[in-house]
Amino acid sequence: MKPDGTLLLTRHEIANLLNIEDCIDAVEGAFRLYAEGKTTKPGVLGIAARDGGFHIKAGLLDLGRLYFAAKINANFPQNTKRFELPLIQGIIALCDGENGYPLALMDSMEITILRTGAATGAAAKYLARTDATVATICGCGNQGRISLKALAKVRPLTLAYAFDVDENQARRFAAELSRELAIEIRSVADLATAVGDSDICVTCTPSKQHFLKREYVRPSTFIAAVGADSEDKQELESSLMASSKIVVDLLDQCAVIGDLHHALEQRLITKDDVHAELGEIIAGKKPGRTSEDEIIIFDSTGTALQDVAAAAIVYERAKSSGTGLLLNLGE
Amino acid sequence: MKPDGTLLLTRHEIANLLNIEDCIDAVEGAFRLYAEGKTTKPGVLGIAARDGGFHIKAGLLDLGRLYFAAKINANFPQNTKRFELPLIQGIIALCDGENGYPLALMDSMEITILRTGAATGAAAKYLARTDATVATICGCGNQGRISLKALAKVRPLTLAYAFDVDENQARRFAAELSRELAIEIRSVADLATAVGDSDICVTCTPSKQHFLKREYVRPSTFIAAVGADSEDKQELESSLMASSKIVVDLLDQCAVIGDLHHALEQRLITKDDVHAELGEIIAGKKPGRTSEDEIIIFDSTGTALQDVAAAAIVYERAKSSGTGLLLNLGE
Repeated sequence: MKPDGTLLLTRHEIANLLNIEDCIDAVEGAFRLYAEGKTTKPGVLGIAARDGGFHIKAGLLDLGRLYFAAKINANFPQNTKRFELPLIQGIIALCDGENGYPLALMDSMEITILRTGAATGAAAKYLARTDATVATICGCGNQGRISLKALAKVRPLTLAYAFDVDENQARRFAAELSRELAIEIRSVADLATAVGDSDICVTCTPSKQHFLKREYVRPSTFIAAVGADSEDKQELESSLMASSKIVVDLLDQCAVIGDLHHALEQRLITKDDVHAELGEIIAGKKPGRTSEDEIIIFDSTGTALQDVAAAAIVYERAKSSGTGLLLNLGE
Repeated sequence: MKPDGTLLLTRHEIANLLNIEDCIDAVEGAFRLYAEGKTTKPGVLGIAARDGGFHIKAGLLDLGRLYFAAKINANFPQNTKRFELPLIQGIIALCDGENGYPLALMDSMEITILRTGAATGAAAKYLARTDATVATICGCGNQGRISLKALAKVRPLTLAYAFDVDENQARRFAAELSRELAIEIRSVADLATAVGDSDICVTCTPSKQHFLKREYVRPSTFIAAVGADSEDKQELESSLMASSKIVVDLLDQCAVIGDLHHALEQRLITKDDVHAELGEIIAGKKPGRTSEDEIIIFDSTGTALQDVAAAAIVYERAKSSGTGLLLNLGE
């Protein structure tokens, strides 16, 4: 059957089609397929611009139907100030992996947020203590919101600390999410105390200087290091990275642009000290948490695997619900 | 001013907005900017699939306004037979290079054909004899058509030979284009004789075995080797490549996926034997044709520079003429 056109999906439409729970399952499945060698290695391409840059992530995934997706994300840090535009903007092209037909063109924001939160959720499922009840979220933006929602799906959270350099942002976050998730959320200015009382800590800020110190973190903590996705970003003190059990999304990528790369660069550890890629743990090839006391860090840089998995769900639901605008671009 | 949406442009709309003459100028300008160091190096990313693959080309160009474009092309050789779909399908995303906003999403076919033909035209302008009147086109598909049109813009052609493994295709090509271009076109089965009588020869086939032999080519010929854009494709006998003056679009790319790479692989020549990148000649940094007798080959693998230049013209004309559908995907 010849395809009937390319489906165009707006951010709002996508938000209505995908929730974090399903996205965690999809992302977990994608990492498993990758670790089992059932998918090709996803690729990245970066092009620097004057005031920012463009990052392309592309990959293939066999989800019963073979899908390819390429995400083109622009990252311009001064956008809000200069143009009242978002820092990150982008497009995902989803294609049929069997014949290349462009099935859908989607705004990338919602999928980027959800699939990143989903990786945090999937990692916590395998790496956080099963009885984890307290979490600290560093960075109370979109990514902080989805991270806490994802954690609440996989662990019995009762209390969360919200930390942000902008205290108003932290207070809003606490007010909004405590209602939505029905758990207690306290906005805090003292990160050390919050982290010292937490089983889980997520860092999802644009920080270029590490702020999560080794001394803050108690044994048994699970840390998801989400913010650093380029050479110049760092959230965790390198000695914290070096002294913890490290799990990464993709080793080669984390070694270059993840929080991991600072510890490597300072020669505190080598790539061999990394315990596993997340997929290896999900696929049962390597153990996850093996003691109550160990500190485990998940270094999350974001992969095309996650984008393909999330975009495929969105596409299939859009088709079956009649959402989106169908346009034959090749005509 | 905040952008008002992303412009969606179909193949048909694009065909009405861009002609080969303007595209030659645009592509020439893009190569010049690149050679003058006024643009960043364009990037490529390939992802192999079971029955084909995806190729992404991305680059930035300052054309008064700063533009970024990424082209995602799928290449599935058995598509026509298996799915009644084109072998090549794809999408170009054009973004504002200053803030990343996705200005337009376009079907990629028309731009790919035109900008490739335009590179052949620009190269012929600098590398073919100024009195060239006879051309041979090997491969009478879309690319053959646009190549001949481009050549006719830059040289006083009076006769063309059309060669194709499918002789009907060559006859149709001759009938159609002789009317349109008002020159004599003969479909031929004997390539040696045609090339031996030609000042210019364009190869634009999907061939995996060289068919243009060194012995066919007379002194003073300009050859545009357009078809080979992956490791396994080849159109020119390697000894022809090795004994000619070689100009490339991008040296690093041609050395890997261009027709050039076969001569390199067979160690008939080294990268140092390549005379110039086309941009260097256009920018006046290196000489073009310096004798009537020399055989010059242009190895054309296709660059994002050409895509950005062509897509930017299409976008600006679409905006000013009100063509296309405007959609706010980020909403």
